[in-house]
Amino acid sequence: MNESAVFKAARELDQQDPLAPFRSRFVIDDPELIYLDGNSLGRLPIAAVERAQQIVRDEWGCRLIRGWSDSPNSWMDLAGRIGDKIGGLVGAEPGELRVADSTSVNLFKLAVAALRAQPGRSRLITDDLNFPSDVYILQAAIEAVGGHHRLEIVPSSDGITTPLSLLETVVDEHTALVALSHTAFKSAFVHDMTAVNHLAHQHGALILWDLSHSAGAVQVELRGSGADLAVGCTYKYLNGGPGAPAFLYVRRELQDRLENPISGWLGHADPFSFVLDYAPAEGIRRFMTGSPPIASTALVEPGVDLLLEAGMEAVRAKSVAQTSFLLDLWETELKPLGFELRSPRAPERRGSHLALGHPEAWRICQALIAEYHVIPDFRVPDNLRLGVAPLYNTFEELAKAMNALRQIVEERRYARYTTERTGVT
Amino acid sequence: MNESAVFKAARELDQQDPLAPFRSRFVIDDPELIYLDGNSLGRLPIAAVERAQQIVRDEWGCRLIRGWSDSPNSWMDLAGRIGDKIGGLVGAEPGELRVADSTSVNLFKLAVAALRAQPGRSRLITDDLNFPSDVYILQAAIEAVGGHHRLEIVPSSDGITTPLSLLETVVDEHTALVALSHTAFKSAFVHDMTAVNHLAHQHGALILWDLSHSAGAVQVELRGSGADLAVGCTYKYLNGGPGAPAFLYVRRELQDRLENPISGWLGHADPFSFVLDYAPAEGIRRFMTGSPPIASTALVEPGVDLLLEAGMEAVRAKSVAQTSFLLDLWETELKPLGFELRSPRAPERRGSHLALGHPEAWRICQALIAEYHVIPDFRVPDNLRLGVAPLYNTFEELAKAMNALRQIVEERRYARYTTERTGVT
Repeated sequence: MNESAVFKAARELDQQDPLAPFRSRFVIDDPELIYLDGNSLGRLPIAAVERAQQIVRDEWGCRLIRGWSDSPNSWMDLAGRIGDKIGGLVGAEPGELRVADSTSVNLFKLAVAALRAQPGRSRLITDDLNFPSDVYILQAAIEAVGGHHRLEIVPSSDGITTPLSLLETVVDEHTALVALSHTAFKSAFVHDMTAVNHLAHQHGALILWDLSHSAGAVQVELRGSGADLAVGCTYKYLNGGPGAPAFLYVRRELQDRLENPISGWLGHADPFSFVLDYAPAEGIRRFMTGSPPIASTALVEPGVDLLLEAGMEAVRAKSVAQTSFLLDLWETELKPLGFELRSPRAPERRGSHLALGHPEAWRICQALIAEYHVIPDFRVPDNLRLGVAPLYNTFEELAKAMNALRQIVEERRYARYTTERTGVT
Repeated sequence: MNESAVFKAARELDQQDPLAPFRSRFVIDDPELIYLDGNSLGRLPIAAVERAQQIVRDEWGCRLIRGWSDSPNSWMDLAGRIGDKIGGLVGAEPGELRVADSTSVNLFKLAVAALRAQPGRSRLITDDLNFPSDVYILQAAIEAVGGHHRLEIVPSSDGITTPLSLLETVVDEHTALVALSHTAFKSAFVHDMTAVNHLAHQHGALILWDLSHSAGAVQVELRGSGADLAVGCTYKYLNGGPGAPAFLYVRRELQDRLENPISGWLGHADPFSFVLDYAPAEGIRRFMTGSPPIASTALVEPGVDLLLEAGMEAVRAKSVAQTSFLLDLWETELKPLGFELRSPRAPERRGSHLALGHPEAWRICQALIAEYHVIPDFRVPDNLRLGVAPLYNTFEELAKAMNALRQIVEERRYARYTTERTGVT
């Protein structure tokens, strides 16, 4: 395909895109910047700018302590109200999901709770596609329940995919918990949630999903698929802001069976009784711990509202179309230049980014930012991730980014950049 | 003392007050509102309004993912930079204190770390003046280390004070950890930090302080007094905003001896290596867990800056003068009306609020808010707390509030309010 034909096709796709108007709902100060890192930090919804002023100047500044109880929009209600909205994006019912803490703290809480609820079972299963930080936390959870458990990390078949058949050989009647990232941060591989839930339950194990790379990008039916527990972050495809508070989900039937291992005042049955004995609240609130950071929590809502307005079906359809567009261009333009595909080809097993390997990935990444104004995402040692956020990325942006990658390698433009790794990207 | 003499004295004290200009550094939209609840949620610094715009609109909106690494003010540095500033208020050295998580999560982390570092010692000591939520968390910490430990709650002598002599009868060579609130949330009783540290260390125990009601109100010398560990919130006297992230302190000499029980990616030696094995960072960073909520974290800084500018010596001097002023008025005006003093008389043992008991405290509190525009703080069952925040409270406000309390009881104005308790106050 020649260059102009690609751009023509991209512009046509943009013209037909029913989600195209959503781009104008985000702050885009530099229209030339091609931002393909919504899988690390989503863009700022315009509504969040006003919300920041409101929560700081009007609510904190003027309402002061009364903000905690002001009805109908009290700070006390934020974690539940926004939690229920996120629940609407990932197939949870009202009262099954709350915004709280960080993903790591939530994972610790739910993993410890699950292990304690499964006496006599000693195995905790994950795979090597999971976030390393999730693996650290699962190890920490094991220490917190007494250390007789064992974490087993299933090796993916090729660094890209963990087939269900592999998990089937591992999960057994000694398994207490299966804990996986639904969409893998490296390859964008998406587990078959229904099948894995079924596998875990067949053997009496509980299942805990990390939805950080799924929420707002991939259709998830927590309740419908029989998932027990889930956590996830809000700063990627939910556009909640840097380091924004995370969420946790506990299937309603399990809520009163599990205990929060970091039992704080907000999870108490009567938080304002100030009694010295802990008594857990009924329902999802028992998994809360301390006071939520209100400014950061409130800023999660505008991004979630945009996704609810767009609808996850439309978001997912565009996401698949966009990663397929990238994949086709990789095949014709980049594969011959030494780029390796590190994401699944099957769209139903692929999340909202495309991972490409290249021996010069780090230097290519620097050239992409400096010379083409394209922000991708780099992961050691040689992984370039191109994240598509259907609410604001256009097909034309994708065409430009792929064209830039081709030029950078064809013309060896990366050669002038350092091999030394710095920064976050 | 007659009413006009009291107001005259108050106005004279305000005129002589070297900290008086700081009031103008806060958003005060309603000059008639007398806000005596800075011990629950501090007022909004004007600088924080601008900071909110900057962090949201400019940094998140325009810098996007680059905000994490932008020098010199990267988001990655916030927890350490603001932590060091808070350290300057509580006598920690740079690199000993970080902003992170909630007070409860931090307390859990440090209590578990301390108990694990003290093998063979089974006793954990606290007192009944501590926050109930701290007691819940200490209980949770015991469960996380295996359950053979025992939490002992020393009963205070009178609900106001826990004398050192009482602690001396309890702390022994089986004590792993002593965990106390430095300033008690109910009575404002302030433990003698140096003496308690010495007592703990004499017996080989570690000591963990909750500074939530001390930081920004009472002079604290963590390092100078030999404290091992501390946590605290930032939303009270530090004016960091509702639910703002908390802090944790680990004395430098202990940092590499203790392990973070919720080992997350930010505490990893090389967070961007993405290796599956956890290796703790050196120094205080190992006690970090997940990504910090950047908006709420950044908003902590303006309030801390104001306290650093004012100086804790001046802040404490005014705080003592103001609670003494309240105490004198209680003695002459309120004691005869059935108000009971529930704070220590000795200024060196008293934090920055005065607790008054009254059988009708809840209804008095409602009258105070509705008819006098005074916001106090109520704690079940019959405790009225009057918090003074020296950076923005005037003596005249205190005189008005005490006069209102007198009128409400003398004229039985509380009688029209409900005995049913609602809301947060």
